[in-house]
Amino acid sequence: MTKMEEKKLKIDACFSPFLYPVYKDDESIVVIIDVLRATSAICTAFENGAEKIIPVASLEEAKAYKQKGFLVGAERNGLPVDGFDFGNSPFHYMGENIKGKTIVLTTTNGTQAIASAKDAYKIVIGSFLNIDALCDFLLNEKRSILLLCSGWKNKFNLEDAVFAGAVTDEISNRSDKYDFGDACIALKYLSQMARKNTNRFLTHSSHKKRLAKLNLKEDIRFCLTPNQTKVIPVYKDGALVKMSPLSGSPQRGEG
Amino acid sequence: MTKMEEKKLKIDACFSPFLYPVYKDDESIVVIIDVLRATSAICTAFENGAEKIIPVASLEEAKAYKQKGFLVGAERNGLPVDGFDFGNSPFHYMGENIKGKTIVLTTTNGTQAIASAKDAYKIVIGSFLNIDALCDFLLNEKRSILLLCSGWKNKFNLEDAVFAGAVTDEISNRSDKYDFGDACIALKYLSQMARKNTNRFLTHSSHKKRLAKLNLKEDIRFCLTPNQTKVIPVYKDGALVKMSPLSGSPQRGEG
Repeated sequence: MTKMEEKKLKIDACFSPFLYPVYKDDESIVVIIDVLRATSAICTAFENGAEKIIPVASLEEAKAYKQKGFLVGAERNGLPVDGFDFGNSPFHYMGENIKGKTIVLTTTNGTQAIASAKDAYKIVIGSFLNIDALCDFLLNEKRSILLLCSGWKNKFNLEDAVFAGAVTDEISNRSDKYDFGDACIALKYLSQMARKNTNRFLTHSSHKKRLAKLNLKEDIRFCLTPNQTKVIPVYKDGALVKMSPLSGSPQRGEG
Repeated sequence: MTKMEEKKLKIDACFSPFLYPVYKDDESIVVIIDVLRATSAICTAFENGAEKIIPVASLEEAKAYKQKGFLVGAERNGLPVDGFDFGNSPFHYMGENIKGKTIVLTTTNGTQAIASAKDAYKIVIGSFLNIDALCDFLLNEKRSILLLCSGWKNKFNLEDAVFAGAVTDEISNRSDKYDFGDACIALKYLSQMARKNTNRFLTHSSHKKRLAKLNLKEDIRFCLTPNQTKVIPVYKDGALVKMSPLSGSPQRGEG
């Protein structure tokens, strides 16, 4: 075995924040995935000029920020929580009112995933909305990758898995530097089956059904649309900020 | 919605014993899956006349049984552990010496999965070796089902997922009484891709590579061979015993 082969990078996927302790290491870039809808909303907010997003795990923390005068988004079980400024629909994060602002966000799954991985080497936010920019960034970093799916209340969910599969597929098509964990091997197959029509593929998924009941079909359609932004949100000192895709370092004040 | 629809059964899959607390409920039949090789070895032992198998999580417990004169199988990291009677190769459990015997077993993953689910409504053991009998039993029980994959050191593994997918596929082909969790929807697709040649499909899986390095190709081939037995091992009072496929109640002394 050559030295080159010994140093092959890893790409793996973890299907639940609850399982993160089993997968964590000190070197991987962790991609947080909650495509319906937290990570899609986060990408949208930065694309529309938000300066910073502070993810918090509990409603209590969110309330404390609200009392201090912050704009706060809060979602539980697919619905906006009373008393806050936004839910987690991407359409809530497109207005003039967010330009240059710091927003606090708490959601059922996505912000919990960020909290669980907070000690990782680097945390970035992935969604179909920024998938190409994300893959460019990951390939450029030449680091091991852990795709952390937020799931639904710590259970596996289909839409995050399909997105993780799409990333795995793209990485494997563009580089032979990675060893694929078993989860990523399974995801590559899943992604190949989903590729033609992701929306239809997800028809039977539990969360898509849940959101459809809440009349959120437009949200779903938007969240599954690739490449609406080149923004890659990165977690830095307790908050998400924008990163320029190929520098790997956080940029502020771009929006 | 009719009363019938409200009472639809669930089938879901959990990809790691570590994640079991998130999936557990009081009503589901839990199928323990560790096809390479613990659950294949367990099915083989009963097919060859073992009376009872006591799964234990630690080597210390296994040693204590050994000192009391029990036959004990012990595997860690794919290898038999020194000082015990067997490893976890199915071929270790085919001899005359196991007929009518109680065997104690500890393995890297499978016996840990049994330990984690020990309070479930019912625990049965699944492998390709007993897949048809297992599916007949599950359909006959008319209960919700949780397919608990042992994985590798609490990470997702491909071979247990492929087996869980094969069970899901069979259940969905033969009954419309089940709601499929997201993990089972993903597994159905995976299983469809794996069906033609499971051995080849698993070529890149981490554990298959691990076992191939240990020169265990014959073990792998055997463990992936469907329907070598109609035995369904069931967990009862701290030990696995044989169950007759359609009665749902444990049977003893059949071997």
